[in-house]
Amino acid sequence: MALPKAIAIHEVGPREGMQIEKKPIDTAEKIRLVDMLSACNFPEIEVTSFVSPKWVPQMADAEELVAGIKTRPGTAYTGIYLNSQGMVRALKTNKLSVFGKLSITASEAFSKKNTNRTLEETLLEADERIAAAREWNVSVTEIGVMSAFGCNYQGDIAPQFVVSLIERLVDTAHEHELPIELIQLADTMGWANPLSVRRLVGAVQDKWPDYKINLHLHDTRGMGLANAFAAMEMGVDDFDSAVGGLGGCPYAGFKDAPGNIATEDLVHMCHEIGVETGVDLERVIEVAREAERIVGHPLPGKVLRGGHLPGYRRRLCAPA
Amino acid sequence: MALPKAIAIHEVGPREGMQIEKKPIDTAEKIRLVDMLSACNFPEIEVTSFVSPKWVPQMADAEELVAGIKTRPGTAYTGIYLNSQGMVRALKTNKLSVFGKLSITASEAFSKKNTNRTLEETLLEADERIAAAREWNVSVTEIGVMSAFGCNYQGDIAPQFVVSLIERLVDTAHEHELPIELIQLADTMGWANPLSVRRLVGAVQDKWPDYKINLHLHDTRGMGLANAFAAMEMGVDDFDSAVGGLGGCPYAGFKDAPGNIATEDLVHMCHEIGVETGVDLERVIEVAREAERIVGHPLPGKVLRGGHLPGYRRRLCAPA
Repeated sequence: MALPKAIAIHEVGPREGMQIEKKPIDTAEKIRLVDMLSACNFPEIEVTSFVSPKWVPQMADAEELVAGIKTRPGTAYTGIYLNSQGMVRALKTNKLSVFGKLSITASEAFSKKNTNRTLEETLLEADERIAAAREWNVSVTEIGVMSAFGCNYQGDIAPQFVVSLIERLVDTAHEHELPIELIQLADTMGWANPLSVRRLVGAVQDKWPDYKINLHLHDTRGMGLANAFAAMEMGVDDFDSAVGGLGGCPYAGFKDAPGNIATEDLVHMCHEIGVETGVDLERVIEVAREAERIVGHPLPGKVLRGGHLPGYRRRLCAPA
Repeated sequence: MALPKAIAIHEVGPREGMQIEKKPIDTAEKIRLVDMLSACNFPEIEVTSFVSPKWVPQMADAEELVAGIKTRPGTAYTGIYLNSQGMVRALKTNKLSVFGKLSITASEAFSKKNTNRTLEETLLEADERIAAAREWNVSVTEIGVMSAFGCNYQGDIAPQFVVSLIERLVDTAHEHELPIELIQLADTMGWANPLSVRRLVGAVQDKWPDYKINLHLHDTRGMGLANAFAAMEMGVDDFDSAVGGLGGCPYAGFKDAPGNIATEDLVHMCHEIGVETGVDLERVIEVAREAERIVGHPLPGKVLRGGHLPGYRRRLCAPA
């Protein structure tokens, strides 16, 4: 299939990146990071998580952060949440785009470890979550499957199993007449490769040709951009990424395992292969540099160090 | 096209990696690195360069290094050289596989900067180099084009231009009845993307279907594995890479620009997609760790930090 003319990139660095950093990051620094990202023209920036400060103390400042950022028209600012309590916190900021998502992880082992629930229990809870969303007039527009390609606690995940989970969630969505638009496939721990991306994306497209697919890729083993390219050739035009490659992988058992694919590397590749992103590459690179200063260690993004090709082309064309 | 069943990986870390390091590396450490690589089962290890110590002082110990390594049957040990003086130094070690290569860079600007010769001058020198090879009974089996995709000093390089350079070298090879087997396309400064890899590889295959193609890829902008995957799907089954991603890019103008694609990341991807390499992945990862200790700074390889998937699978299958 031909590459898409354009893709949408959802910047998740502030949320996924700050969550894993060992040293506490000042709220003012996080606000500055989001404000810098706002100048890059993303359709969405995921700014924080509304989760229990007991479990994720790095996110205890969610409300303060949201209060501090300057929103920009054209960008949706979002926060993730795992239960109705978190959803209400997000709504109370009165500044975020709040939508609902039916989420599940494809790994039984990770589900138990991460949420203390079996997959069956998670599926059964969907009704409750939908009721809470309805009460607050939150549209449930997404279905999401985490660890959709494999899991450090479970191993490889068969695409048919992922399809069967999505089927259950689609059925639930239909029963409740939810306006689902998008299915997110998340390679939470970096198990995907270009062939498995084609297999799973193909299986989902065959069954649900009308839903948009979003890929949330991690670059844990260096295949992030290869996977993104393979997905684009399948027609996928919606991706998550994190500036500088912020994020790490809390599950890898290595303290500095690479995290999400780096936004600037994804944007750079897209522009090189003629796929528009609408994102300002040079500004994202500046933000990646700033993100390194904020977290106080090098980030895994490559363009940050190697230099971007449009810059070389421009310098070569400039009169001497 | 289907992926190849197996590919050959040429380990170039000791040569390309040690050349760029700022701090002097002990010859004993370099020898240890090569000896560790010898246990990984590569068809070739490029161990050093026979170049002027005036220009590349890090390689002044080439003879001492070669004398110190333990060679292993099944692996060819090679060194690069740029002129007949270097070739004779390599031969005099009486321990290396010495072959000849008709090399050119596709960038006029880089050719002048790097070798003080125009492309035309380089092409005209081929006769001399062939005569020297003949005098020492060195078979000239390769044609190589550096900066075949683009150059920091010249910009994008058109595939037709690369094809025209190869045409000149193939003509010269025919005139001299050289036993050319392989055409190397080197993305010396990391300008390639999956589409440009397909274009150039396709153009070379169309014109010379009987020559093997080798790709020498750098991961300067994060597309290294995406490019390798694209090339494999074109049938390319011969790659260079450097353990840990040693090498950096001396031309990027950034001190820590990523270097060659990391051997362990390439091997890992291949095994995940069912392409054999014959290389012992876990041993290469051990060597990458050792390489980090030797150079004294983190290397850009990802599997090194993220952990390899066969290891996760094995631990998950082990009885608790």
